[in-house]
Amino acid sequence: MSWQTELTTRLGIKHPIIQAPMAGGTTTPALVAAVSNAGGLGSIGAGYMAPDDLAGAIAETMRMTSKPFAVNLFIPQPFQIDEERIEQANARLDVFRQELNIERPAPPKHYAQPFEDQFETVLEAGVAVFSSTFGQLDAGRIKALQDHGTCVIGTATTVDEARALAEDGVDMIVAQGSDAGGHRGTFMGSAEQAMIGTLSLVPQIADTVDIPVIASGGIMDGRGMAACRMLGAAGVQMGSAFLTCTESGAKPAHKSALLESRGRATAVTRAFSGKAARGLTNRFIEHMAPIEAALPDYPVQNGWTKDIRAAAGKADRDEFMSLWAGQAASLARSMDAAELVDTLMREYDACIQQ
Amino acid sequence: MSWQTELTTRLGIKHPIIQAPMAGGTTTPALVAAVSNAGGLGSIGAGYMAPDDLAGAIAETMRMTSKPFAVNLFIPQPFQIDEERIEQANARLDVFRQELNIERPAPPKHYAQPFEDQFETVLEAGVAVFSSTFGQLDAGRIKALQDHGTCVIGTATTVDEARALAEDGVDMIVAQGSDAGGHRGTFMGSAEQAMIGTLSLVPQIADTVDIPVIASGGIMDGRGMAACRMLGAAGVQMGSAFLTCTESGAKPAHKSALLESRGRATAVTRAFSGKAARGLTNRFIEHMAPIEAALPDYPVQNGWTKDIRAAAGKADRDEFMSLWAGQAASLARSMDAAELVDTLMREYDACIQQ
Repeated sequence: MSWQTELTTRLGIKHPIIQAPMAGGTTTPALVAAVSNAGGLGSIGAGYMAPDDLAGAIAETMRMTSKPFAVNLFIPQPFQIDEERIEQANARLDVFRQELNIERPAPPKHYAQPFEDQFETVLEAGVAVFSSTFGQLDAGRIKALQDHGTCVIGTATTVDEARALAEDGVDMIVAQGSDAGGHRGTFMGSAEQAMIGTLSLVPQIADTVDIPVIASGGIMDGRGMAACRMLGAAGVQMGSAFLTCTESGAKPAHKSALLESRGRATAVTRAFSGKAARGLTNRFIEHMAPIEAALPDYPVQNGWTKDIRAAAGKADRDEFMSLWAGQAASLARSMDAAELVDTLMREYDACIQQ
Repeated sequence: MSWQTELTTRLGIKHPIIQAPMAGGTTTPALVAAVSNAGGLGSIGAGYMAPDDLAGAIAETMRMTSKPFAVNLFIPQPFQIDEERIEQANARLDVFRQELNIERPAPPKHYAQPFEDQFETVLEAGVAVFSSTFGQLDAGRIKALQDHGTCVIGTATTVDEARALAEDGVDMIVAQGSDAGGHRGTFMGSAEQAMIGTLSLVPQIADTVDIPVIASGGIMDGRGMAACRMLGAAGVQMGSAFLTCTESGAKPAHKSALLESRGRATAVTRAFSGKAARGLTNRFIEHMAPIEAALPDYPVQNGWTKDIRAAAGKADRDEFMSLWAGQAASLARSMDAAELVDTLMREYDACIQQ
């Protein structure tokens, strides 16, 4: 079983399953710890977290598991604060606010968390695994993590991105196919041209780099895991599959939507955050579509939709939420994370041995 | 080996490999016969063929093999002949014509071949397998084929399309993922929302219908075949992999471009035919992009680009050709079709048994 051992030995886990780092409150310490305790690798999606909150989440997760887990951060990219675009977006967003009985809020004090402080928090906490998306971590920080014994994982959506990350010295690469839900990790070239299906992307990246490749995008059950093994992946990262777990912090309406999504379309949209991300189609996406290209940059748009998404969550109205979902999300199941990990490994073994 | 027998028994072939029906001269009788003689299923991509030419191609293929092969037709869809759009497209196309030293031709006598006559040709020839794309064959014709002992295969790009085809009574379904090269088979709903990765699409369709599912899109080697078996497919259909075979009628420049395409982007474009299709990005696509949404319908645009594509082929200038390619086309190899089929089965066995 060289497939499993390649990844599991380095990460110190039992099963080659990584619970994807979903930012925005989904990856509760309870979820992360449950996945790690079950033999997979839980991940805190910390991109939007203030450094203090992140420190708290890491400490809480460490209280709940002694097993390795990952923390994921977004690599910062330059962005513009364009008042004209903000006003145009807000004019449309106000329609939602009116229906939700909320007022347009004051401008956020800051749009992004301070990356340096987030990073220092991770480094000092001595987490087992660090993963990043949206770009390349500088070589100095990669080395600092590795010197602390932390395994460093980068995210690529193209062969060129994978090659660049491998040259940077990361330990492993997540190959994020266009099937994936949530934010696209693309950081080189055009976002559209980086929409490469998981089945196509994984073998090409595996042929390009000589470090372990972790397949992600559209993997929901043992069939998907077994398929990715055949493609040359050393393991899998799964988001939507864990989003519907009992311990996940996703809104109940989001979980229900995924569980009932057979045949329902997903779309890649900048409507919620300003950065391309895949979710179930809904009224929010359709309403913002006419100004999609003129929306504020990420994370500015994210800052201005926060109040709506929070109010929609409270009111249980999924037409105003970001219903992040991969393209196979209809295969989602509602169960405890430990039960899901067990089920996945049982299904996977059955597929491989058939 | 229930996976292989499910498909192979019904089709009367040895290996669960279908050479995809690539229209436009790629699927020569030599290629189709070579694939079938090697134990796979060759397919004549006959969508653009005049009934007499099709009858000739079938007869020639039958002289070269006694094994089953398929003929594929496009299900006709209504289209508009919009003179304003045609003129706008031609104004841009004239730039290519100038560089290729050709004149804008007279309007084509007809844009589409007569489907009724194409269909009668297939029915009378008594081919083993009929496959179709771009829509649903009417129930009467499905039954007529089946009464003649012909196996009927439909093409779906979504779960809803697969369900509709199964209800129509087709014998098998090709699940065409967004990874696929060439024309999208989408015939229900929005073309954009039907861009579902092969890895995500196959298991969801396999869970929905109870007839064999043939995976297509991004499958280039034994790894891809093994992966699709794990996902629940009964076999695979491969286009780009056969396009670079010795016997393929693809232009030499097209073959070279595929063989050297590692890291090169593909795009889905209406620029060549008026219908969404995936190919390597090139100057033709970029030059037409500004009027992409206002291009004439399929097959009108196809009729007006024919002269340019033919001249570009003769002049060996791939910047003016439709370089159809799936998203894993960089894994293409140059060999005889029989050698490719053997290689695929050897790789597949090694993957499954690892």
